[in-house]
Amino acid sequence: MVIFDEFFKPESIAVIGASGNPGKIGYIIFENIKHSFKGEIYPINPNITEILGLKAYGSVKDVEGNIDLAIIAVPAKSVKEVVNDCIKKKIKGVIIISAGFSEIGEKGREKELEKLKTKIRIIGPNCIGVHVPNRLDMLFLDKKKLKRPPDGSIGIITDSGAVGAVLMDMAANEGVGISKFASIGNKIDVDEVDLMYYFGKDVNTRCIVIYLESTERGIEMIKIAKKITKPIVVFKAGKTKDGAEAVASHTGAMAGKGNVYSSAFRQGGIVEAETLEDIFDYSKVLSTQPELKGKRIAVITDGGGFGIMTVDALIKYGFEVNDFSLNVQKKLKRILPEYGIFKNPVDLTGSVNAEMYQKALDILMKDEEIDGIVCITLFQLPGLEDGVIEALRDAKMHGKPFVVCSAGGQYTLERVRKLEKFGVPVYPSPERAARAMNCLISYQELNK
Amino acid sequence: MVIFDEFFKPESIAVIGASGNPGKIGYIIFENIKHSFKGEIYPINPNITEILGLKAYGSVKDVEGNIDLAIIAVPAKSVKEVVNDCIKKKIKGVIIISAGFSEIGEKGREKELEKLKTKIRIIGPNCIGVHVPNRLDMLFLDKKKLKRPPDGSIGIITDSGAVGAVLMDMAANEGVGISKFASIGNKIDVDEVDLMYYFGKDVNTRCIVIYLESTERGIEMIKIAKKITKPIVVFKAGKTKDGAEAVASHTGAMAGKGNVYSSAFRQGGIVEAETLEDIFDYSKVLSTQPELKGKRIAVITDGGGFGIMTVDALIKYGFEVNDFSLNVQKKLKRILPEYGIFKNPVDLTGSVNAEMYQKALDILMKDEEIDGIVCITLFQLPGLEDGVIEALRDAKMHGKPFVVCSAGGQYTLERVRKLEKFGVPVYPSPERAARAMNCLISYQELNK
Repeated sequence: MVIFDEFFKPESIAVIGASGNPGKIGYIIFENIKHSFKGEIYPINPNITEILGLKAYGSVKDVEGNIDLAIIAVPAKSVKEVVNDCIKKKIKGVIIISAGFSEIGEKGREKELEKLKTKIRIIGPNCIGVHVPNRLDMLFLDKKKLKRPPDGSIGIITDSGAVGAVLMDMAANEGVGISKFASIGNKIDVDEVDLMYYFGKDVNTRCIVIYLESTERGIEMIKIAKKITKPIVVFKAGKTKDGAEAVASHTGAMAGKGNVYSSAFRQGGIVEAETLEDIFDYSKVLSTQPELKGKRIAVITDGGGFGIMTVDALIKYGFEVNDFSLNVQKKLKRILPEYGIFKNPVDLTGSVNAEMYQKALDILMKDEEIDGIVCITLFQLPGLEDGVIEALRDAKMHGKPFVVCSAGGQYTLERVRKLEKFGVPVYPSPERAARAMNCLISYQELNK
Repeated sequence: MVIFDEFFKPESIAVIGASGNPGKIGYIIFENIKHSFKGEIYPINPNITEILGLKAYGSVKDVEGNIDLAIIAVPAKSVKEVVNDCIKKKIKGVIIISAGFSEIGEKGREKELEKLKTKIRIIGPNCIGVHVPNRLDMLFLDKKKLKRPPDGSIGIITDSGAVGAVLMDMAANEGVGISKFASIGNKIDVDEVDLMYYFGKDVNTRCIVIYLESTERGIEMIKIAKKITKPIVVFKAGKTKDGAEAVASHTGAMAGKGNVYSSAFRQGGIVEAETLEDIFDYSKVLSTQPELKGKRIAVITDGGGFGIMTVDALIKYGFEVNDFSLNVQKKLKRILPEYGIFKNPVDLTGSVNAEMYQKALDILMKDEEIDGIVCITLFQLPGLEDGVIEALRDAKMHGKPFVVCSAGGQYTLERVRKLEKFGVPVYPSPERAARAMNCLISYQELNK
């Protein structure tokens, strides 16, 4: 087993503080693990004999079998004792969900705990744990309130449990797939740098996302980031002076100067997300699209207005939206409806159907004067059947970067989720589609 | 009847080109009108005798009763003839849905039609018509694909039918209420300036939104905008040279220079939306919030990370996030959970409940050193029950501007819709919440 696999690929888990009382955090965690995890599960609670049909143990020491990972959800004052039990049981890793340490000023209690990290690997305390879609769900957040994202290729590391939770909910809503998720809380042992390194080696992760409030290992972070060949997107909170003070109030950590972080990220080839939206807007395009070899973009649309908005947004980001060669225009004219526009942006008009998208994409993907495509797909239009989803999926075969822009409500969102599942990044506005294209350029410039 | 009331408050409607064939545009329009409109409806189609239980007429001239408005959905070549029939019948207004005029190069056909505008008021051709939530639905777009927005206070005027349709779908999804909607198409008669004036007088409209590709009445637009005392938000498409060329391809109109438009908008006190998201982000806050009298903002949150992000975003937009007075800190300390943070941002922590929001809002709303509030409400947190929705609704009573930031998936969105219904503007990220606050400042500076 590779180091840290105990956290993400354990074969057996003990849940210390598992509760038989629905509504309690120790119940929700246990229930979610039981429903998601296929290995051995040991509920640990000295006050009961059975939980959800599984025999409960008084301590991990009473368990006969091997335990890879322990999840700890007991009051803060008991944490040290149960971690010591885990050490005696030779458990490789513990995830401490329990809060009540340095984040509330209990620095001494945290220091005591920290001493144990030479004997066992620790994630937390004060975190929401790790999450592997379809395999390991230990979140104490109600599935009704917070949907779980599908399996995918984005790895998330977060300093804040709440921000991490919301990111998962957003990903689930938009159909963005997650490979692995880790909330690192007060990070007395395992931190963002350790997990960035681990995700860098993880075959299922194609892009690493980090929500960062502070780091004490800035130089190592940059050094390791440079060596990782996959894209890394960081959102740094607390970049302003007042924001940094808020970080200090939140966790007691020093947030440092925003511009120092930004220049360090650039040195490490790390793409910086400037808004909450950027986090997935960037990681989606970076985890799915090939190199953008130039700035010449073709726009395909089924609504003239959206085509115009997209051109404006692309120009704003420094792209070129040039006229097509006569040859391309001739080919487009053959496949377009009578009054379709075969200039750039190509307007398939309200008479659009899936076949037109497929053919227009094929013509433009093959043209050497086009480096990338923004494809606007307004699913509200009458003639647009779901065949367009396959047309967009298949356009990936050409190996040229493209993104989709689809705005609207639930009907649209259901189709967006399907596209995301196929690795086609979709954006809810022309501005965000153009910004995602620009992110490809930024990433390449930082890493050339 | 005030001029243009015939379009938005007709008492009787003829649908010329109403079809009995489901799937045809003339059927969908007729069916949607029949399901939404409470007045007299006359289907006009010489080839059938009855549609959906209503007697069909060969021409509007055959109808005995009075007709206020005719919707026209017949082939382009027949439009002139049926409009002439409408003139003979003394119908006040026609909405020409039919396409096939200047937008496809048929300038002569459009010129012929334009001559009739002295005898009857015309919206269109080449448009999706008008829409009044709960009262008049003539959209030929499937309700399954495109949901209709709730009744509300934002009036929309759009040069593009597709953009207008998507805006409606977005509004429906987020629960943003619309007072009146008009797609003006090739605007051979009624245009954005006419409707801006009309919406300016409309008691149900508190903010006017215009999606504009081009106008031939720029000077009048600015002159009238200056006189309208309600906020006007314009998104101008085709601001770049390439974008302007795309406008010419789309509609044949001259888009003009982007910077000329922007400076004209400023002169007219019009707020310019720079992205698709801005359109509702701005109109929501402008239609619901009172004057923001200064730049001192308090932030309330139930997740530390979101508080930090919001502070950063506010500072970026030039706001102040100052420490609270000792008096306010003392009051906050009394109502917060044990480890809550009573600095700015106020962190109600994961132990939050609705009462804490209500009390924190009350304390901060009453403080004279605070000009506005950004309230982050992460609905995913375990203790947060729906009572918080009422707490946020009631906070409006204080007459101080505030916006809410709630990010997440479906569960969150259902609550967001309720808040929007109560006139509380909600934003899906700290960045957009701060940007909306900044829009209040921009609007005030443009109109002082």
